[in-house]
Amino acid sequence: MPADRLDRQLEFIVELDSLKSIHRKTLKICEPSYENDAEHSWHLAAMAVILREHADEPVDLARVLQMVLMHDVVEIDAGDTFAYDDEAAHREKERREELAAKRIFAILPEDQARQMYNLWREFEARETPEARFAAALDRLQPLLHNYLTRGTAWRDHGITAEQVLEHNSHIAEGSTFLWEYVLRIIRDAVRRGYLPES
Amino acid sequence: MPADRLDRQLEFIVELDSLKSIHRKTLKICEPSYENDAEHSWHLAAMAVILREHADEPVDLARVLQMVLMHDVVEIDAGDTFAYDDEAAHREKERREELAAKRIFAILPEDQARQMYNLWREFEARETPEARFAAALDRLQPLLHNYLTRGTAWRDHGITAEQVLEHNSHIAEGSTFLWEYVLRIIRDAVRRGYLPES
Repeated sequence: MPADRLDRQLEFIVELDSLKSIHRKTLKICEPSYENDAEHSWHLAAMAVILREHADEPVDLARVLQMVLMHDVVEIDAGDTFAYDDEAAHREKERREELAAKRIFAILPEDQARQMYNLWREFEARETPEARFAAALDRLQPLLHNYLTRGTAWRDHGITAEQVLEHNSHIAEGSTFLWEYVLRIIRDAVRRGYLPES
Repeated sequence: MPADRLDRQLEFIVELDSLKSIHRKTLKICEPSYENDAEHSWHLAAMAVILREHADEPVDLARVLQMVLMHDVVEIDAGDTFAYDDEAAHREKERREELAAKRIFAILPEDQARQMYNLWREFEARETPEARFAAALDRLQPLLHNYLTRGTAWRDHGITAEQVLEHNSHIAEGSTFLWEYVLRIIRDAVRRGYLPES
């Protein structure tokens, strides 16, 4: 093994620590503070373990887990973009995230850098069963949090049921069963006044 | 599917959120605050992805990942026990964690409850290659944090190099290669004054 292989792996592992300081717009359920990317990624991974039977197509669990564990690494440089920002902000986000992926994964030994970069691109493209299921969980988790914290983050940002439906519709691409559940809780959120209809 | 299967799975997923409020005695590297169990579990999982080639025996990545993602769930009820507490405290911890595992995993549908409980017991017993490697990472991660935060948590608790060596020695059961690295950083920590020898 080249002398610096472990050094590069550990440098990447230390770099990852920064995700613990990147805060999202989602409130935790257990206490009134915003969760960070590390907590969010862990929660997605645990959900993948428990909910994988609901994926529309069979998924390789190890691939889904690696994807959700690494999907937000680019936010170390690019920051968290609010899900309901406009299209221009999202195009700018894509540019920043591509640069971030290039820099951060390149810390790793070449073979692993390529593997992690490809995994991240696969997640973003949502063209494989694993990526579609991982992306569905990435939407379901904050939606559950927003519902269980009585829509506080939705109301703080003036979000409507119409926007939530549109933004989360690709849960349906990964799991029809979970999407049906989501439709029920969105209707309930409207009924409870957590979300205006439009 | 029984009507309540998804309800039970989601109840468990919501219960897990509490790990985001259970603080450990390890400082984050990226900011001067203590990390919580969710952040720690995510970091272990990412380390498993990157470092698995260093396990002494081949490991099934999906099993290792599930183990590290779920290994601290019992702390929702049992709390974080300081690694350097005495033996009586550790026996009491085992009792509390067994009760916690029984309650928390039982939220899940029966098949998954059994599966997650068995995975947790497997992790604790360190008798399989996957459990030995997962346990090695569970020691290596805080050790790296303590070293990179200049031994602050070690000094705050009056820990010596002798204690660190003894406590972390089962890293050697999972990876001889990572254990050699650990011996080097412990020696360096002594040299830099982060740790007194005894």
